[in-house]
This record gives sequence, C-alpha cells and structure tokens, in this order.
Amino acid sequence: MNIGMFESFVTSHWFSTGAKRIWSDVATLQSWLDVEAALARAQAELGLVPADAAEVITRKADARLFDLQRLADDIAFAQHPLVPVLRQFEALCGEPAAGFIHWGATTQNIFDTASALQMQQTHALLVQHLDAAMCAFGRLALEHRATVMPGRTHGQHALPMTFGFKLAGWIDELERDLDRLNQRLGMSFTACMGGAIGTFAAMGDVGRVVEARMAEQLGLRPAGLPMRASYDRASDYLSALGLLAGTAQKIAQDVVFMQRTEVGEAAEAFHMGKVGSSTMAQKRNPSTALLLASLARMVRARVPAALEAMVRMDEGDSSATNVTDTLLPEIAIIAASIAETLAKLAGGLVVHPEAMRRNLGLTHGLIASEAVMMRLTPLMGRHEAHRLLYEAAQRAQSEGVPFMTAIREHPMFATHENPPDLAQALEASAYVGESVAITTETVERVTGLR
Amino acid sequence: MNIGMFESFVTSHWFSTGAKRIWSDVATLQSWLDVEAALARAQAELGLVPADAAEVITRKADARLFDLQRLADDIAFAQHPLVPVLRQFEALCGEPAAGFIHWGATTQNIFDTASALQMQQTHALLVQHLDAAMCAFGRLALEHRATVMPGRTHGQHALPMTFGFKLAGWIDELERDLDRLNQRLGMSFTACMGGAIGTFAAMGDVGRVVEARMAEQLGLRPAGLPMRASYDRASDYLSALGLLAGTAQKIAQDVVFMQRTEVGEAAEAFHMGKVGSSTMAQKRNPSTALLLASLARMVRARVPAALEAMVRMDEGDSSATNVTDTLLPEIAIIAASIAETLAKLAGGLVVHPEAMRRNLGLTHGLIASEAVMMRLTPLMGRHEAHRLLYEAAQRAQSEGVPFMTAIREHPMFATHENPPDLAQALEASAYVGESVAITTETVERVTGLR
Amino acid sequence: MNIGMFESFVTSHWFSTGAKRIWSDVATLQSWLDVEAALARAQAELGLVPADAAEVITRKADARLFDLQRLADDIAFAQHPLVPVLRQFEALCGEPAAGFIHWGATTQNIFDTASALQMQQTHALLVQHLDAAMCAFGRLALEHRATVMPGRTHGQHALPMTFGFKLAGWIDELERDLDRLNQRLGMSFTACMGGAIGTFAAMGDVGRVVEARMAEQLGLRPAGLPMRASYDRASDYLSALGLLAGTAQKIAQDVVFMQRTEVGEAAEAFHMGKVGSSTMAQKRNPSTALLLASLARMVRARVPAALEAMVRMDEGDSSATNVTDTLLPEIAIIAASIAETLAKLAGGLVVHPEAMRRNLGLTHGLIASEAVMMRLTPLMGRHEAHRLLYEAAQRAQSEGVPFMTAIREHPMFATHENPPDLAQALEASAYVGESVAITTETVERVTGLR
Amino acid sequence: MNIGMFESFVTSHWFSTGAKRIWSDVATLQSWLDVEAALARAQAELGLVPADAAEVITRKADARLFDLQRLADDIAFAQHPLVPVLRQFEALCGEPAAGFIHWGATTQNIFDTASALQMQQTHALLVQHLDAAMCAFGRLALEHRATVMPGRTHGQHALPMTFGFKLAGWIDELERDLDRLNQRLGMSFTACMGGAIGTFAAMGDVGRVVEARMAEQLGLRPAGLPMRASYDRASDYLSALGLLAGTAQKIAQDVVFMQRTEVGEAAEAFHMGKVGSSTMAQKRNPSTALLLASLARMVRARVPAALEAMVRMDEGDSSATNVTDTLLPEIAIIAASIAETLAKLAGGLVVHPEAMRRNLGLTHGLIASEAVMMRLTPLMGRHEAHRLLYEAAQRAQSEGVPFMTAIREHPMFATHENPPDLAQALEASAYVGESVAITTETVERVTGLR
Repeated sequence: MNIGMFESFVTSHWFSTGAKRIWSDVATLQSWLDVEAALARAQAELGLVPADAAEVITRKADARLFDLQRLADDIAFAQHPLVPVLRQFEALCGEPAAGFIHWGATTQNIFDTASALQMQQTHALLVQHLDAAMCAFGRLALEHRATVMPGRTHGQHALPMTFGFKLAGWIDELERDLDRLNQRLGMSFTACMGGAIGTFAAMGDVGRVVEARMAEQLGLRPAGLPMRASYDRASDYLSALGLLAGTAQKIAQDVVFMQRTEVGEAAEAFHMGKVGSSTMAQKRNPSTALLLASLARMVRARVPAALEAMVRMDEGDSSATNVTDTLLPEIAIIAASIAETLAKLAGGLVVHPEAMRRNLGLTHGLIASEAVMMRLTPLMGRHEAHRLLYEAAQRAQSEGVPFMTAIREHPMFATHENPPDLAQALEASAYVGESVAITTETVERVTGLR
Repeated sequence: MNIGMFESFVTSHWFSTGAKRIWSDVATLQSWLDVEAALARAQAELGLVPADAAEVITRKADARLFDLQRLADDIAFAQHPLVPVLRQFEALCGEPAAGFIHWGATTQNIFDTASALQMQQTHALLVQHLDAAMCAFGRLALEHRATVMPGRTHGQHALPMTFGFKLAGWIDELERDLDRLNQRLGMSFTACMGGAIGTFAAMGDVGRVVEARMAEQLGLRPAGLPMRASYDRASDYLSALGLLAGTAQKIAQDVVFMQRTEVGEAAEAFHMGKVGSSTMAQKRNPSTALLLASLARMVRARVPAALEAMVRMDEGDSSATNVTDTLLPEIAIIAASIAETLAKLAGGLVVHPEAMRRNLGLTHGLIASEAVMMRLTPLMGRHEAHRLLYEAAQRAQSEGVPFMTAIREHPMFATHENPPDLAQALEASAYVGESVAITTETVERVTGLR
Repeated sequence: MNIGMFESFVTSHWFSTGAKRIWSDVATLQSWLDVEAALARAQAELGLVPADAAEVITRKADARLFDLQRLADDIAFAQHPLVPVLRQFEALCGEPAAGFIHWGATTQNIFDTASALQMQQTHALLVQHLDAAMCAFGRLALEHRATVMPGRTHGQHALPMTFGFKLAGWIDELERDLDRLNQRLGMSFTACMGGAIGTFAAMGDVGRVVEARMAEQLGLRPAGLPMRASYDRASDYLSALGLLAGTAQKIAQDVVFMQRTEVGEAAEAFHMGKVGSSTMAQKRNPSTALLLASLARMVRARVPAALEAMVRMDEGDSSATNVTDTLLPEIAIIAASIAETLAKLAGGLVVHPEAMRRNLGLTHGLIASEAVMMRLTPLMGRHEAHRLLYEAAQRAQSEGVPFMTAIREHPMFATHENPPDLAQALEASAYVGESVAITTETVERVTGLR
Repeated sequence: MNIGMFESFVTSHWFSTGAKRIWSDVATLQSWLDVEAALARAQAELGLVPADAAEVITRKADARLFDLQRLADDIAFAQHPLVPVLRQFEALCGEPAAGFIHWGATTQNIFDTASALQMQQTHALLVQHLDAAMCAFGRLALEHRATVMPGRTHGQHALPMTFGFKLAGWIDELERDLDRLNQRLGMSFTACMGGAIGTFAAMGDVGRVVEARMAEQLGLRPAGLPMRASYDRASDYLSALGLLAGTAQKIAQDVVFMQRTEVGEAAEAFHMGKVGSSTMAQKRNPSTALLLASLARMVRARVPAALEAMVRMDEGDSSATNVTDTLLPEIAIIAASIAETLAKLAGGLVVHPEAMRRNLGLTHGLIASEAVMMRLTPLMGRHEAHRLLYEAAQRAQSEGVPFMTAIREHPMFATHENPPDLAQALEASAYVGESVAITTETVERVTGLR
C-alpha cells in the first residue's frame, strides 16, 4: 500500500531519488545501527565494553539482518520506537555481546546522531545540485551579460538592465544560501550521547570522552552539552533551508512570468511527449518552475513546525520530538528536490533576446525616464527634473502623446535656452548601469566561470 | 511617540480609520465599562445587586472620566490589566455602588465580552466594504459579460473566456467569504460571565441567567459554557478572515498581472499627484492592489497564532490570552482594511478590452485548440483528436508554422475524406462556453444587479 | 523502499489504517476512475456520449487493471499526472469507447472531484472516532460529575471544580469541532466539471447539467461555478481541522499535566509490554497523549499552506494545486488519526480522585479565597473584601501563616463586630458552582448519555 | 488615538521602551534623513555633488524640522512613502542644495539602509539584556550547581540532576542564540544604494564606490549587489530571532511548570501590589514567564511572513516590501522585549531546593532505576538488567510495593548468589552524572563567572 507523496505513482518523480534513498526505512535503521556500533567501539577503546563485544556489535550492525515487519508490529505494541530494534539486535549479537549494546545511551541519542549522519549525506547531495544550478545560471549569465531587457518593479517597467544582471542576482543569493548551509551543517547536526537527560550519568566520568570518540568515528562533532530539550541547532539549519526555498520560489516565479504568453522572454526546456494539459493540446507549461515553486512552499510551510518544536518540556518531550523526527526526513527530501529541480530548470532554460527587445520598446522610451532626469539635472536640479518628467510621463500615458513630445512641450523644458538632446538618453541599452560588470564579477566569484 | 504601523505617518493611511477607532484605547476601555455596566444591570434585575448601585455604575461607565496615563502606570506596577481600572471605577462610583462592581466576574470575562462588542462593530464595517466591492465588481461584470479575453492556466493561455466571467468567479468566492463571516460572528464572539474558571461559582445558582441577561443587554449570545480555556469559537471567525485574505490576495495578484506593462488589460485608478517612484517619473504602479496583497499577507500570517493560542493550560492561560488579546485588534483592523481597500480597487478599476483582444490573438489560434479538438472528436474520438492536435500545436510552436497549417498537414487530419472546416473553431470569441450566462446569474444572485 | 512517516516501520502505527487505505495509490486511482465513469454515465443520460461507451467505461474503471509502475514512469516522462492514466484507460476500453473518456473535462476536475469522494470517506471515519471519544469522555464525566479537583489558571490553583466539569468543557468544544466539520463537508468538497477554466466550453450548453448529474451519481454537490482558481471551500474545511487539532492538543496537554509525577490526577492506559524508555525501566509515559499533541501540531502546521495555496494565478495554477493535491491526503490522514488517537486516549483514561483531593488541600484553603470574598462582601463590598483577602493571602504565602489566621488578624476583618464564620467558606467542595449541573446537561446534550 | 499593542495603556509596559524609541516615527524619519545625508557626503567626496550642498543637506537632516502631520496627509495623497518627505526636505535645504538630495537613490535604498541602522541599535539593546539574563542564570547555576532535583522527560521523572545543570542547558542554548545574532547582524542589514533596480545606473560608474563610502559613514557594510528583490539577508537574522524566541518560550514554560502549585521548585519575583486576579486574591501567577512565552509566540508567528516575503516579483515588489517594512519594527521591538523580559525573569527567580528534594522522593527510588540497572549490568548484561527492572518497576507502580522489594523478589535477581547491595544505587543524589562539572564549565565559558 503506497501512501504519501514520496512514493505515490503520481508524485514520486518530483522528489530526489538520492534523497529518498538516504531516508528510506532500511537506510534509517542502518544509520541507527551504525551509531550503536560506533558507540560500542568508542566504549571499547575506553575499556567500558569488551573489545570482542564491540567487534560483534559492529559486525551485526546490518539492517539487512532485521525483520522489518516484525519490528513494525513490536514497535506498535511496545509504543516505543527503539526497544524492539534492540531486542532483535541482541538476538543477532548473542551473549555476551548482547549485554553491551546501547550502553549508557538513550533512544533520542541514537535517533539524533543517526539523523545527523543522514543530514550530512543529504547536504552533500543538495550542494552538488546547487552547484550545478549556479554553474548553469552562470553560463547563461555570461552569455547574456549584455542582453538588454526591462527591469521591473511593482509589476511595471522600471529601468533597463541586462538578463545577465538578473541572473547575477539569483546567483548571488543562491551563494549566500549555500554558504549558510555549509556553515551550519556541522554545528546543527552533532553526535549526542548524554544519556536520558544529558548528564552522562550511566557512563561514570568518561561520558564526554565517549561522545567525542564516537563523534570522531562517525565524522561528526560532539554535542558537548547534549540537552535533548534543545533543538535550536537543527532548527537553525532547517531555517536556512527555508531561506533557500524562498530564493528558489522567487526564481521560479520569475521564470513563470518570463514564460507568460504575453512576455515570452524565456522558456523552460520542452521535449515532445511533455504534456501540458489533458484537454488543451497547445499547452507548454513552465511545469518545472511551477513544481519548484510548489516544493519551495512545502519547505517554507515546515519551518514554523521546526521552530515550534523547540519548545519542549523539561529535559525531553516526545510531543516535540515526534514532530521533528518525522519532519526532518520530509524537509530534507523536499529541500534536496528543490536543489535538483532548480538545477534542471537552470540547465534547460531557453532565452529569447528578441522578446526582451520587443518588450523594452513597449513604452516608447518611458522606461528611460530616469536617464532623462539625470540628463536634465545639471540644468534644474534633480527635484525639478523629476517634477517635469512626472508631468510629461503621465501626460504621455494619459493622452497617448510620445514621451519625447510631452517633454519638449513641457513649460519647464521649453523655457531652457539650450535644451539638451534627449534622444540618446531615451536609448534603453545605454542605461543599464553596472549590469555587465556586476554580472561578470559575480559569476566569476561564485562559479569560477569567466 | 508614535510606534506601530497603525499610527505611523508612513502607513496609517493603509488602515481603515473606522476600524482603528473601534479598537483605540479609549474605545476599548469604554467597551470594558459597557460590559461591567450591563453586568450590574443584569444582576440588579435578579436582585443580586441593588438597583441604585447598577444605576450609578452605568452612569459612571464613561471612559472619558478615567485617567489613562495613571491607568497605564498602575497596570505596569500591578502587572494586571484590569484591577487598576476597577480601582478608578470604584472611586468614580463611590460607596456603596463601588462594592458591587465586577460582581462574580473575572477579568477575562470582561475582556472577551468587550472584544465581542468591538468585533461586532468591525464586522459591520467589513460587511459594508465587502458589499461595496462586490457591487463594483458586479457592475463591471455586467458591462463586460461578453468582453472576450484569454483564460490562463499555469501562466499560459488556456481557453478564451469573458472578463465578466473572471469577475463572476471573484464575486462568487467573495460571497462565500461573506456568508462564512456572517454565519460565524454570533457564535464566535459571545458574552461570557462564568467567573474565574467558568463554573459561575460566585453567583450562586443564577450565574447562567445573569450571563444570558447581560448578553441580551449587549446584543450578544451567551457563551453557555464559558470555558476560558476554549478559543475555538473566535479562532473559527479568525480563520474565516484568513480565507477572505486568501481571496483578496488572489484578486490583487490578478490585477497586478493584468496591469503588467506587457499585458495592459486593466489598470487601477490613477490621479495626478499619485507617485510611483522617487526616481522613475513614469511609474504608474498598481499600488492599491499591491497594498491589498500586503494586507492579505498580514492577516494570513496571523491565523496560525490564533490556532496555536487555542492550546491553553488547564482552565485559563495568559501565555495564550496575552497573544489573542493583542492579536484580535490587529487582525480585525487589518481585515477591515482589506475590505475597504478591495472596495477602492474595485471601484476604480479601468478595463482595456482592446488589450484583451490583442492578447487573445497572440497565439494565432492555439488558444482555441480545445475547440478544434471537440470539432474533430466525432471523426476520430477525443483521444485521437488530442493526439493530432498535440503534435500540430507543438510543431506550430517549435517550427513557427501557423496552427491551421500544422493541423492540415498532419497525417491523421489529411487522411480524412471530409475534413471539417476549422476556421470557425479557431475563432476564440465563439468558444467562451457559459461565460455570459454564469456572469449574469452570479451577479444577480449575489448583488441583485442585472 | 519505504519512505515517509505513513509507511515507516517506526511511525506507521501512529496513523489510522482506515484513513491510509482511503488515500493509498490504488484507492486514489480508483477514485479518479469512479469520477471518469460517473462523468461518462451523466453524459450518456444527456446523449453527449453513447450509452454503450459509458457502460464500457464504467466496467473498465477498475484500478486493479492498471499497471501502476508503468503509470509512474510515464507520468515522470510526460510531466503530466493524468494523461498516462487516460492512455492506459483508453487501451482497456478499446474503440469506440476510448474516444469518449474524459469528455469535456480537465485534469483538475477529476482530481478535485475524486478527492471530494475520499474526503467524504475520511470524514465518516473521523466522525466515528470523534463520537467514540466524546462518549468515552461523557461516561467519565458522569462518573466524576462531583469529583472535586483544583481548577487552575496561569499554572496556579484558582477555584475548585469537578473533574466532570473539566471534561464537559472538552466535550462542548469537541462538539463544536464536529458540527463545523459536518456543516462544511458538503460545500467544501464538491463535484467540479467546468473544464479547463470553468466555462464548460467543451460541453455546449449542457455542462452545468452534466456536472449536476455527475454529482448526484457520486453523492456530492455540484460546484456550480467551478473556478479552479478558487480553493476557499476546501480551505474552509481544512481550517476546521486545524481547530479540531487545537482542541485535541489542549486536551492532550492537560492529560500530560494531570499524569505528571507530582500531580497524578489521571493516567492514560498502561499494559505490560508498553515501554517508556530504552534506559529508564520505570517510565510510564503519557505516550498516547504526547502522540496526540504531535499529530495536532502536524495538522496545525499544514493549515497555513492551505491558506497560502488559495492565492492562485489566473484561472489555474499548479504551483498551488501541486501543494494542495499532496497536502489534502496528508492532512486528512493525520486528522483522522487525531480522532482515532483521541478516542483511544479517552477510552483508557484512569482517574485518581484521591490525588485530586490531595492537591486541593495543598494550599490550605487559599484556593477558596473567592468563596471567602463573596462571604465578606455583604459586610464591606466586593472591592474591600478583595483588598483584605489579597493582603491576608499574600501574607499567608510570604510568612507561612495559615490563611484563616491571616484573615482573622487582618485589621479590616478584626474590627467587624460580627465577623462571619469562614470555616465553611474555606471548604473547597462547597464552592464548585454549577460544575455538576453543567456536566450533566452538557453530556446529555452532546452524547445522549445521562 | 492610541491603537496597537505598543502604545496601548494595557500592554505598552510589555515592550522595551528603548526599542520602541528606536522605532518611533520621529526616529524612523531621522534615520532616513541620516542616510540621505550620508549619501550626499559620500557623493560630495567623489565630486558627484557639490560639497556645499552636502553640507546643507547634512545640516537640515533633522527630523524635528519636519511637519509630521502634513507628511502623513501628503503620503496618503501621493500614495508614496518618501516623495513627500523629499519635498519638505528640499524646502528646508533651499536652492541649490535641494537639487542634490536623493541623488541616484531609490526609496527602498533609503528605507533598507535606515532600518539597518535601527536594527543595529536594537541589536545592541538586545545583546545587553541577553547578557544580563545569562549572567543572572549563571549566578543561580553556580549557587545551585549541586542542588539535586528530578530530571524529567515526557512529563515523568526520568533521572536525577542538579538545578545548575538545567540552567547550564538554558545558558548554553542562549549563547548559541546570541552568537547567531552577532554573526548575522552585519551581513543581514547592509547599506544599499543601487538605485531603482540595483544597477547603479544613475551614478555612472562610481555607484559602488558611493555605496561603500556611504556604508562606511554609517558604520554598515555595503550590500555589494543591492538587489531589492533579495530579502534573504534580513530574513536570516529574523529567523535567528525566531530561534531565540523558541529558547525563551522553552525557558518560560519550564519556569511556569516549576512554579506550579504542585511542584513549587521555583517562583518568579513577587512584590506586594502585584495582582494575580481581579477575583482570586491568593493568586501569585508566573506572569513574567507567561508574558515571555506570549512575546515568544508573537515573534515566532512573524517568521513565516519574513520567509514568504522573500518571494518577490522581478526587481522589486511592494506587495512584499510593504510587509517587511512594517514587520521589521514589530519583530525588532518584540524581540528586544523578549530579551528584556528574560533578564527580568532570570534576575528575580527564587529557588526552593526543599521542594526539589521533596519531589525527588515522590517515587521512592524509581527515579534511580537506571542507576540500579548499571549496577546489575556486570551480573547479567545491560539487556537483562533492563528487563528485570522493567518488571520490578512496573509491579511497584501497579501493586504499590516498594521498588526495592519488587527488585529483591524478582526471580532474576533472587537467583543470583551474591546480589549487590542496591541501597546506594537508589540514592538519587549520587546519580547526577556530570551535572556539576558541566554546570561549572558552561557558566564560566559563557559568562566568565566562576
């Protein structure tokens, strides 16, 4: 019985196969066992546990040896997620090793450390896809560093810019997203082995050393003060995924707009057999961008749950850990899928410079009003120039006269003895500011491309 | 010292003056006093309190008689929001009436009942503005019941429809929003007088009668079982405001799109002196629609807090009531401002049918592919017709051949002995379905206009 | 590969098996086919489609005949969720019936109508569990209608009440939750058949009749104006699930508190083999209540996504429908699991009246200070009585003197000639107000029990 | 007319006066003017603007010279938030300086840079209060480094620990919160001067130098690539405030629990005149902790709006900036108030070690079951020891026999030849693990106290 969006025949292809593999049942169980084994080895090094036992525990720490269906049943009966796993593990290890499994640990220690391992793997996947996306955008940006198009604010043409500059903005923001994730990973997902309430009570005075050695074995940092009631570290990384989602959705919606029938400045990849509608044969939807926006909404919607789950009773609270134990895989898979989908979108984007040019011309020069203002400024000051152009531009729009005419006929302009020649100022491509320089520098800084 | 968006010189004009007046400090205090007076009168009717005392209490229940600054100071010292009010009220009433104020009540009873009164007033305002918005959209819809424009899905042209039909959809959804609010108001905001924990312990066995009579005096329904730990009733209305916000934002974003420089199908009202930018003189931004979207986001963002604040400890919990006591005024003011802004947007909307026609023509008939499919269906079945048109339409887009040509040259079409004449099918205005009928019926049903 | 919390060996037992079955892949596909078949039959009645074709379509509308793996692959390739289903369906039906499948419909019509059917089934399940929960609480409430316990506000003892009264409050709120869901179901989940943009363009002028007949066949209401860009109806029901979640979490947290080691007033069911901890053998955790709180958080966290997804571009927007198409099953399953878990919690709750009595006595009468105030009121007015008792009660707490002594020694009390006997006023069980009456009436009204 | 929680007579004392001052209307206007002045000076240095003009602009950049009421009216008419300010500013500066104001800038540049200045000030306030809170907790922790109390998980006694250890956990988490905020401040709130769309078009090729010099003047970092459509930097800091809120609410709820009538382990400061209830004279509510939790909810509720507002159309989108322009002051004031309230709570906390001892004894040794298990482990392995103790502990709870007896009578224990003496293992104070060491080290590391 397939249930849930990750496995559904309708939606499973939305989600990164790699990420799903990392968080599958078997992989999760394996991750728990890896932690138990690393714990035993760390304790063996310190003489808490016999070396033989640690060796057996390590050898039997293999998810394939477990009966998953029986685990599911026993967990439902015991209403405890780990004890039935320990029972099977004990049986697999046999005496005397069985008696040394899970020494001094509590369930949440194992879960948190295991999910740290899984988050590390997911992060690596995510970074790889983000890198691909940034490189693809970077190549496009270099190609279109000087392709002029309308810059828009509040849904209206604002100033000219280049398409490369737009992409540079995306790349710049994506790099910050990536930096944040890289910086936080290690501190957000640590190895925890403080026992039931974080005091290391069951390990005499070597608990913190055990935690540190276990962490080293697993390639993680030790938590140090492993309070189970603290979730700020993980929530920090998850919030950064929320930021990545915000960036991705912004990009996605820009692409959807640029592909609008009326705009046509860009389009995502199309292949014969890609269907837009069960009834409208002509449809070429920006379905990758729309999916990207959907995935981004899904991640953003999960961030508040991660923040709320920081609020935990006392030294441990399953009303919160139940939520985060299930939230973490979801958000990890969806975030990796965001990165993957973004890379796909970036890799397939088709640009239509001629549509950009056509759109630039739609306002017959109004888009360059600021350029004209800067030209008039030496004559009358910036404030008067804005006033003149406001009246001329609004008259142009209300009465349908050409902008140039409206300027020339404006009393403030007409009275000047040597009115400047404005034709050049009205040329949009001459007013893209630092578009090209910023594009080139940003792409090189972030991707190394030039 | 002005702080906060409702009073800031920058943003105060965003918010309904009427709604702000309802929730001003003085109005809130007056509302509390009105409840205390109604309580005293109800108790006097039942002999719990001397009639003279109730008369004095009613007479002195006048916010203008209070020293607000001293109240603020005393409340900060007592860390209690009502007891200092009672102290001033007692002094105003004098003995013996002072001894009968707030009989059997707890603070939250007064606050909840008072805010119910304020919500009733806000609701009336909101309904008035929503009615105005629906009527304005209704008039436009009738005028443009047959004005053909592109229907769009996933950002791409889909099928033709009329602008009236689009408006009918908005009106239909707004009516549901309004119905929900009307239905919930009375049950969501009730008169509560159960005392400290809702048992009516301080009023012998007449507590529920007192609550009912007080409710009648105030034009409210009695809570019946006035658990202070229940907030589902209010949250229900607040959720419905969230739905209204969703509708408003959808409309706002559609207007923003229709006013896009490239689309130009509609524009919101403009007056000389309305400024779009401090630097770009030409700008005519859809600032009312953008403000509407902003207000909608502000309401939506507050709904989760209302839901979370349902989770209350035991029989009362100020960690939740603090939140809702301050959230309710905010959400009420913003929601009323949504309705007011929507009415303004609707009342000023300018429609450009010629741009709609121009946009309809952009795809040279592709928008009517479904019409062609339905024409071909008798020959080959719906499924084969879709296949033929998919291939023809995609070829048209990839190779730039006219759609009609691509159809005619398709092997599946060419082999038919009596191929139908498709010219008429490609005429968009002939394929608007029930656009006109639905428009006319919806507008009449909702607004009475015809 | 099992992924996702609904199927994971660790957490699958958290979720209602019945609800999971309703939303499994096969059931979803079946639901789509049921809608396609009902559409064909409705169209056959009106002569749009041959009766034979409708008969074949109905007969072949059987999910077991489909190749799900191939569907998954084809959907991934086509990037369309329904067209590959239609292809298999056409092959199963053969000519000429194949040509009449999906006549005049768009994908989202099928999805929305099918999910309406699934929501109906889920609703029935949810109602059944909620009824069971209310009955179980009702029985407990009658049994404990007079069992006195401390009422608490802001985490402190407030007034005495009965445990029955507490339960009556829960029942009252649950009934409102249930009423809301019952009232909204039919309007929230309707049959939609307006075609690509809701204009019924592909069905001549009988589209609305087709929709109505199809709706009747499926036991649903017709949408009437089936705008795909409107999601307020569904969001309304989903918001009501958010309210139910709020109620459930409030109850859950109260149970967790009552089972606190220090409080001990109630405990959820325990059986040998239920394990609280992998390391602390003594643990009897309120794991059902904690799970209930977790599920409630999961539902609440999803409500904002439903509101946000109301904001849709134009006449259809998969960046929103992708979200709601996957959100709906999740929220439905979790909500049904809330109801089931609540019923389980209610059915197993063990009450400890002796602990309630013990806790009542902890403050040595302070909990009855209001009762004393009401006794002193005839002597000095409510305001002076509050002042006297405030000083006495605070002295009792600061200096550790008995409350009675502090009252007697207070100057305002001592100066009265005939000070009342306060011993009876300090008896908590005499000051439960309408606890018993409200309990009895509420339980009978809601559950019929008496 | 006072409206809104920051100024209401009921709630104004909840909020940091310092933070409110930073974000008052006058301070905001002053901040805008400071940015305009710094811009002019930076441009004068580069010869873009005459030195005289920059000098006049700087001198007149004084909010006290402006007519705020007229600004409010003009802004409402122009529907633009800055242009009316510029008009008054121009009049104040006179010619020719007036013509050089706001050179090359766009409104959002001024707003974003000005709010960066205000956030810097708020941050300083917040840090000061957080430091005070950590020091107060640190002193308490040192004092109670060895005060034994029950550690609790899932609402039940788990293992013994010390109160100092609990506080160390809070301090550790608060330090991470503070570190995050310190690290992000500079990058999150930068000086932006890219003009209308970020291309620096109006400043020839010196725009980036102007931005850098202006930033230096203001003590900020330059944005570098000042895309107005990017909000990830600010959202990053705001998310970190959400994490701080999570920590604060966790602490608040722990305090509320510890002050519970039944628990009594700690209490917040009380002074005569602090009132808990208008009707229950005895009430000593943890009102500071409850307020802290409320403020935390208010901040958490605003984080999703900040994330959602990252999603912006094109190169600028006031439907998002309207939201963040008003959200930022709110969240800043509330967050500073969290820090201030936390410091107040920490500074006044009263600890009751005797109640901790009493509560520890409630389970007659069950809380030490893990200690017993570790003692039995050498005899039978950890797994068998857990089994034995599970059965003994559950029997103790179900049948009411002493835990020690239940252990002794258990067949697995009884059959051992040399059963260990368990009396010492059952002594809670001997099983606090690393509580003391962790407390001492954490407090010293974070606060320097020892």
